[in-house]
Amino acid sequence: MITTNVETMSVISHTGLGNPAPAGDGVHELIRERWSPRAFSSAPVSRETLSVLFEAARWAPSSMNEQPWRFVVANLADDPEGHARIGSTLVPFNASWAMRAPVLMMVAAKTAFTYNGAPNHSALYDAGQAVALLSMQATTFGLALHQMGGFDLDRAHLLLGIPEGYEPVVALALGYPGDGAGLSPELRARETAPRTRRPSGELVFGGQWDAPLPPATVSVSEHRPI
Amino acid sequence: MITTNVETMSVISHTGLGNPAPAGDGVHELIRERWSPRAFSSAPVSRETLSVLFEAARWAPSSMNEQPWRFVVANLADDPEGHARIGSTLVPFNASWAMRAPVLMMVAAKTAFTYNGAPNHSALYDAGQAVALLSMQATTFGLALHQMGGFDLDRAHLLLGIPEGYEPVVALALGYPGDGAGLSPELRARETAPRTRRPSGELVFGGQWDAPLPPATVSVSEHRPI
Repeated sequence: MITTNVETMSVISHTGLGNPAPAGDGVHELIRERWSPRAFSSAPVSRETLSVLFEAARWAPSSMNEQPWRFVVANLADDPEGHARIGSTLVPFNASWAMRAPVLMMVAAKTAFTYNGAPNHSALYDAGQAVALLSMQATTFGLALHQMGGFDLDRAHLLLGIPEGYEPVVALALGYPGDGAGLSPELRARETAPRTRRPSGELVFGGQWDAPLPPATVSVSEHRPI
Repeated sequence: MITTNVETMSVISHTGLGNPAPAGDGVHELIRERWSPRAFSSAPVSRETLSVLFEAARWAPSSMNEQPWRFVVANLADDPEGHARIGSTLVPFNASWAMRAPVLMMVAAKTAFTYNGAPNHSALYDAGQAVALLSMQATTFGLALHQMGGFDLDRAHLLLGIPEGYEPVVALALGYPGDGAGLSPELRARETAPRTRRPSGELVFGGQWDAPLPPATVSVSEHRPI
């Protein structure tokens, strides 16, 4: 599963993933290349590829190894009714672009531990980890996904049959990046807008809240991530 | 930042990461190699390396690009008091092994959106994504981390100064994997125990809860992840 320089480059150039993060030196290319487009190609996603994404998610860590994540998935090529059903849980703005993606999913989290029935306060957190690993694996295939909090919770329960005890957490659209031809000019402009994040000093503290972490003193370029 | 076969192999063999996931074909090696040891080496983690981990986490996606994650971090070499303080929030069982790790962190999530003050139901989920990307980046350096839900919430607020409006979510121990010499025989045995997960059929549904996803029909080995 280890590829050479040349193969790696060709995968990335093939994908057309269009808006890499301007991350600092040393950040792995999968993290740098991951992003959340609204422009998807109509190119289908194979069942085989999908199966590897879920296998990647499956190996995420979780509290007590509960694995609270569940995926309701519809691949347009196999299940157009399911695709429409998941799409119909989305708020109209999200549906306007996400329905073009060949794969839609709803992610739900089991809210209690299986072994004793106690509330699992890590359920949503752990579901986030599983989807993050899925997103890393997707990036290796040149796929991109866009996660959406904008969906109707009641419709997700009702239309997808998500039972009590499981909380719908996020919907997501997945596919190969597209050229944005079907997007409004405003949305198309957002596909190429500079990506921004808070400065690290707002997010990372040293030993105590709001205290600075001792700064790095030499370049990180010596690191050679795999 | 793209390495060759030989360099990649040497990074992994150098790390001693000891218990790769028995994941299916095609799963990227960073996902396969990530795991949560309790045996850490006393080898220090440089400030430079730490800075890249937080840079990786910083580029995680989040609802409304809120970036609700915050990290309170203590590197033993720089801040032994902070290390002891974070350690003292852990439940005794976790403290018994995690204090040997050279880096301890507490992750907190901002529970309301900054732009309008409304509750952010994705805060914990998004924090999970940031830590998952941090764990991927750590794996590139041969580092491992072990996340812990077992800590005292009140002590985390009090000792680390985490203010109202931020929820401590998970503590984590980070370092290079060790040989387990300081662990009890029981814990040492757990370091090499087979890793297990639920079967995919319990986690992934096709179009509707409990419906099977159409199976993959050919091998995934044609995929060449980067």
